[in-house]
Amino acid sequence: MATDSIRKCWRRLFSCLSFNRNSNETVPLLRSSQHGGHNVVSNKDYESLDYDRCWNKPYLDYRERYEKQHSDRKLEILQWIMTFAIGFLTGMVALYIDLIVKLLSDWKFGTVDKSILQCSKDGCLVISLLYLLLFNVAFVIVAACLTIYEPVAGGSGIPEIKCYLNGIKIPRIARLQTLVAKSVGVLFSVAGGLFVGKEGPMIHSGAIIGSGLPQLQSITLKKINSKYSYFRTDRDKRDFVSGGAAAGVAAAFGAPIGGVLFSLEEGSSFWNQKLTWRTFFCSMAATFSLNFFLSGIDSNSWGYFYLPGLIDFGTFECQSEKTTGCHLWSAVDLFIFVIMGFIGGCLGAIFNTLNKSLSLHRMINVNPKHKIFRLLEAILVAMVTTTIAFVSAMTLGQCRKIPLKPSIINSTRSSVELTVRDYFCEDGYYNDMATLFFNPQEIAIKQLFHQAGTFSMPSLAIFFILFFFLACWTYGVSVPSGLFVPSLLCGAAYGRFVALFLEQVFGYKTVYSGTYALVGAAAFLGGVVRMTISLTVILIESTNEISYGLPIMLVLMVAKWSGDLFNEGLYDIHINLKSVPLLEWDPPTEAARMKAKAIMDSRLKVVFPQTRVASLIRLLKTTAHNVFPVVTAARDDCSAVTLVGPSQEADLQEQDDVECFVNQNNSNQDGDGNPIELLQRNLPMKFEGMILRSQLVTLLKNHAWYKENVEVCSISIRPFLKL
Amino acid sequence: MATDSIRKCWRRLFSCLSFNRNSNETVPLLRSSQHGGHNVVSNKDYESLDYDRCWNKPYLDYRERYEKQHSDRKLEILQWIMTFAIGFLTGMVALYIDLIVKLLSDWKFGTVDKSILQCSKDGCLVISLLYLLLFNVAFVIVAACLTIYEPVAGGSGIPEIKCYLNGIKIPRIARLQTLVAKSVGVLFSVAGGLFVGKEGPMIHSGAIIGSGLPQLQSITLKKINSKYSYFRTDRDKRDFVSGGAAAGVAAAFGAPIGGVLFSLEEGSSFWNQKLTWRTFFCSMAATFSLNFFLSGIDSNSWGYFYLPGLIDFGTFECQSEKTTGCHLWSAVDLFIFVIMGFIGGCLGAIFNTLNKSLSLHRMINVNPKHKIFRLLEAILVAMVTTTIAFVSAMTLGQCRKIPLKPSIINSTRSSVELTVRDYFCEDGYYNDMATLFFNPQEIAIKQLFHQAGTFSMPSLAIFFILFFFLACWTYGVSVPSGLFVPSLLCGAAYGRFVALFLEQVFGYKTVYSGTYALVGAAAFLGGVVRMTISLTVILIESTNEISYGLPIMLVLMVAKWSGDLFNEGLYDIHINLKSVPLLEWDPPTEAARMKAKAIMDSRLKVVFPQTRVASLIRLLKTTAHNVFPVVTAARDDCSAVTLVGPSQEADLQEQDDVECFVNQNNSNQDGDGNPIELLQRNLPMKFEGMILRSQLVTLLKNHAWYKENVEVCSISIRPFLKL
Repeated sequence: MATDSIRKCWRRLFSCLSFNRNSNETVPLLRSSQHGGHNVVSNKDYESLDYDRCWNKPYLDYRERYEKQHSDRKLEILQWIMTFAIGFLTGMVALYIDLIVKLLSDWKFGTVDKSILQCSKDGCLVISLLYLLLFNVAFVIVAACLTIYEPVAGGSGIPEIKCYLNGIKIPRIARLQTLVAKSVGVLFSVAGGLFVGKEGPMIHSGAIIGSGLPQLQSITLKKINSKYSYFRTDRDKRDFVSGGAAAGVAAAFGAPIGGVLFSLEEGSSFWNQKLTWRTFFCSMAATFSLNFFLSGIDSNSWGYFYLPGLIDFGTFECQSEKTTGCHLWSAVDLFIFVIMGFIGGCLGAIFNTLNKSLSLHRMINVNPKHKIFRLLEAILVAMVTTTIAFVSAMTLGQCRKIPLKPSIINSTRSSVELTVRDYFCEDGYYNDMATLFFNPQEIAIKQLFHQAGTFSMPSLAIFFILFFFLACWTYGVSVPSGLFVPSLLCGAAYGRFVALFLEQVFGYKTVYSGTYALVGAAAFLGGVVRMTISLTVILIESTNEISYGLPIMLVLMVAKWSGDLFNEGLYDIHINLKSVPLLEWDPPTEAARMKAKAIMDSRLKVVFPQTRVASLIRLLKTTAHNVFPVVTAARDDCSAVTLVGPSQEADLQEQDDVECFVNQNNSNQDGDGNPIELLQRNLPMKFEGMILRSQLVTLLKNHAWYKENVEVCSISIRPFLKL
Repeated sequence: MATDSIRKCWRRLFSCLSFNRNSNETVPLLRSSQHGGHNVVSNKDYESLDYDRCWNKPYLDYRERYEKQHSDRKLEILQWIMTFAIGFLTGMVALYIDLIVKLLSDWKFGTVDKSILQCSKDGCLVISLLYLLLFNVAFVIVAACLTIYEPVAGGSGIPEIKCYLNGIKIPRIARLQTLVAKSVGVLFSVAGGLFVGKEGPMIHSGAIIGSGLPQLQSITLKKINSKYSYFRTDRDKRDFVSGGAAAGVAAAFGAPIGGVLFSLEEGSSFWNQKLTWRTFFCSMAATFSLNFFLSGIDSNSWGYFYLPGLIDFGTFECQSEKTTGCHLWSAVDLFIFVIMGFIGGCLGAIFNTLNKSLSLHRMINVNPKHKIFRLLEAILVAMVTTTIAFVSAMTLGQCRKIPLKPSIINSTRSSVELTVRDYFCEDGYYNDMATLFFNPQEIAIKQLFHQAGTFSMPSLAIFFILFFFLACWTYGVSVPSGLFVPSLLCGAAYGRFVALFLEQVFGYKTVYSGTYALVGAAAFLGGVVRMTISLTVILIESTNEISYGLPIMLVLMVAKWSGDLFNEGLYDIHINLKSVPLLEWDPPTEAARMKAKAIMDSRLKVVFPQTRVASLIRLLKTTAHNVFPVVTAARDDCSAVTLVGPSQEADLQEQDDVECFVNQNNSNQDGDGNPIELLQRNLPMKFEGMILRSQLVTLLKNHAWYKENVEVCSISIRPFLKL
């Protein structure tokens, strides 16, 4: 079983290198232009990014010339400036998203609020619902249209970034166009009342900025194309993308350290001290440029930095009357947290399983059809979500007393008290369900974390169940949609429910319900995404409370373990659904005894150090691979090709080099005989190195060939192989 | 120039692999027993740890058998249990160090305090000084004796851990004996009034626990030697040492995330997601087990966790009368911080240069002499330090008013007010110099961070200068001595001085002096150790104030840059002084065009796949290398050895394989002819793999040879090469 799954995964990977017998269609020389259409990309289309430095003679010569003109110092300074610019711009994009979402939400809730207050007297609530539906559907249509125009802008973007940093080129993932579609689309999907977050899209935006900005050119807008040509290798881009993604996390959660760890945990299959430091700088730049503007806009006194990030979970403070008896958590709570973590992991696994089935269904039944169906699905989700939220808030909510007057207590709490919704309740009372449904999600989370007044157990349970299924349905609809904040909100309701349960059923009185809400949020989010160290740090930084480290970590660990019993994290599920050949950190233990030939299922296309131009062009046109192994043939019938040069090749004539190799190879193809074996040391074929498609194309474009005789031209590849 | 330094560094490294012509002395088969003596180790004695997994046939067979008995799951659970145990024990060691140091300090200061209060009336201050001297010298003698008994227990231990994690085996670094010497010695060096910290030794202790505990055996105490034999490879040890070191940082500073990043930044040349998570778990275990006991002992109500770590910088809170005008820092301050960072870097560079000269002097003039001189130096340092501190506190301190009554204000500040020293001052006044000198360093730091009453500028300047030079002299004396807290204290005085300067000279009134003290501390510590991301995180975690992230990072970055203009970080300086061949993250750019032969200065000793026992034993006895390349000779005169097996070797007779290779090679040794070239593909010698000394010894011990003829036995190495 396990070997099968490795075989499946590795085969997918190796298929990048191996020759696909059935594909005889002609492909363009440089393949990137192939992905112009909006089809669902099949796994054959994934190629790897060139993260390896190719040290060959021409490159070293180039470097030597280059270094004379540009000192390393200058390049380093440029790198740092670019890093700052990426952080700054990511912060600004996050700021813009946050502000516009707030504006749109305020507009929407303001209008609807007025209507509800009026209608609760007049009994015209259906009109309020229609208002709300109108807003939400209109917003969602904008978001869905943008996503249908640019499909990779859908979803959270985190799986895609994970793949990119893993070294897999996913088409159009880092285009300016995607950035626009994503950062505008997310405004409307969040403001449209869908149960989605804006954090994932912010992270994706940061990654796109990281990838695009240092190049000062754009494929989308061809006019942006400067002469400035630093940082255009995949390797440089990757480093900047790490920084940009980290900056996105940092801006979204006010968590610069968490951002760095996110980049490392989710993405980087590499680790480098300098890169980490630069990534950290980028995160910090994003956090503090955002903080600067946010604080300035908020208080109109510029130059101070007191609003740490877009998500601020507020200060957790115990305010019991008995001054000593109140603690945020104690050793006894830890045991309960472990159980909560276990349940959270299971809930997350259920969420993932449901979402996986839904996504599969979507891939098979919705996506292949006309685009209009995707739009219709988004509208349907918006309508159902809105109606359910409205109806349940109006009919199922309970009126609870607001416990303290806002003026007496500290600022965090008073701001919490100000956001309660008092629909259909007397003065001094609030509707608990409406408070959760009729607020932006961040505010609802704060309510669950800090609202001293209780929510009723039935309200919490109903809210959790409704939110759980609706969020599960929403993730994957073609709108930009983050996963973090909805999961946190869902989990916070679960945690708060547990606290109430313990208090009311078991009479466990020293519960600080805010801590339970936080732990529940961590447990559920951990169960869904299965991130570990970075999520812990993000949550610690968002709460700005180091003493929550142990409970959060414990809960995330347990949630990951219990969730892993059932399935993978949601991001990995979506990566698998897209058939991306992601390479995990560790190969499966079974792989230790396996050899490459066990998973190779088709033959390699190879080139020889001296290859004829005609055959090279034919090779490039008939295969889709981005890299070719270069071999020399030591056997007599082919040796002329490699050992003695073109003048003695007369006997080969029309039969070109590659075919020579393939034909010769066919003779001993009995059953599982495999050409890769020929490349091994003790057989006539010798592996000399690799050459990229792009390098071959460059050679061809520059006419870097020589005349073999009147009709035949050849290219000498050897100098371009790795040293 | 640069090439020279690479050459020097790499040559040192390659000397591990290469043959030293001049060394003809006989060495024991397994070299670890050689390091029994206490000599200063020369660079020839450093060997690398075996972090590479050696996948060969016998190992895979062994694994297969092993996996049938022990499931991976069981091993993983064991790993996690061990990780927790390491964290817990490290936390306990830190707790014990902290408590005993407090006890000893209280005893000392209690006695001396009483004497001073009495003597300031009676005029017998010399007697107080004698009391203090007696205490300090006695304590320092204990510390110095322990260090002289076990020299690697001296210093902070961080350079040694850095080397260990880099893959270099430094003798005796991870022994139980070292742990005892270090953890007992540090009590007395800190309590003895030396300007040293206990954090470095805590980190070293954690690393030793990490290395030793999972093996459940000890070289020091031979009786501890269980049958249990997991986790004994260098690779496993390394992973646990990472965890232990991180746990040490976590316990010392209450900074679990900082601990993980410390392990990564300072140590690990590898990065692995799982390992990071385990390291984080270890840190958390240390932080919270320490926290649990500390909180329990402090308040006698067990089960709560409110004392975050041993070092707690207290809460930074602005308590100005004008409620809005007070901020911890503003954008304007940032510019000043950059300048402070620059100066801090320069000060750090001066500190490092002075300490380097001193250490060199010590290595040449003190260490080779009798041990008594090292003891005498320690006593001298203790006496000078004590006398200077005493005299300057008594004569140069100024009486300042205590600004607020302790009862009114919050707990952090009130505890700060309680630790002022009022020697020779009226009621309500305190002696500022005595407050800095006659308190444990952590409390002095808190004074500088939070004391609302001012320190006078002359007092701060004098304190800084005295402390700077004394701390510089002390680091390297043979006592266990950390560097973090002294540097922080020194830097805090510098920062506080700058704040006062800005306030009094430039009339810059919105300065919050605590922030300046913190920034100064970061600048100076950063200038000395040149750590970046981990130090930022450690300081953020210690202050529990995320909003200090930007200033701290900025200052550390500038300090590192300005310091790097002059010299390396202090840890690196000490590593270089010990001639440890540490491999940096990035090779120098000049190395890109270099080939190995440019830095090889002597010939390799090689073995053949079939080697005779006699020649193998001779090889092991005459060389000190821990690893040998295995080659096959393809040339006619030697080919018999490798290609056709022993029976056809008759013509070689007495001349053994290795010599055959060497002789044959001598013929084309003209000038720079180099045998490494022979190992290249296109020359007659072919590189087959590597084999470790330990593997060869195991083969020999197990008589794994076959009879070639009546007299000659051979060993077949091939199955043990890497697959």
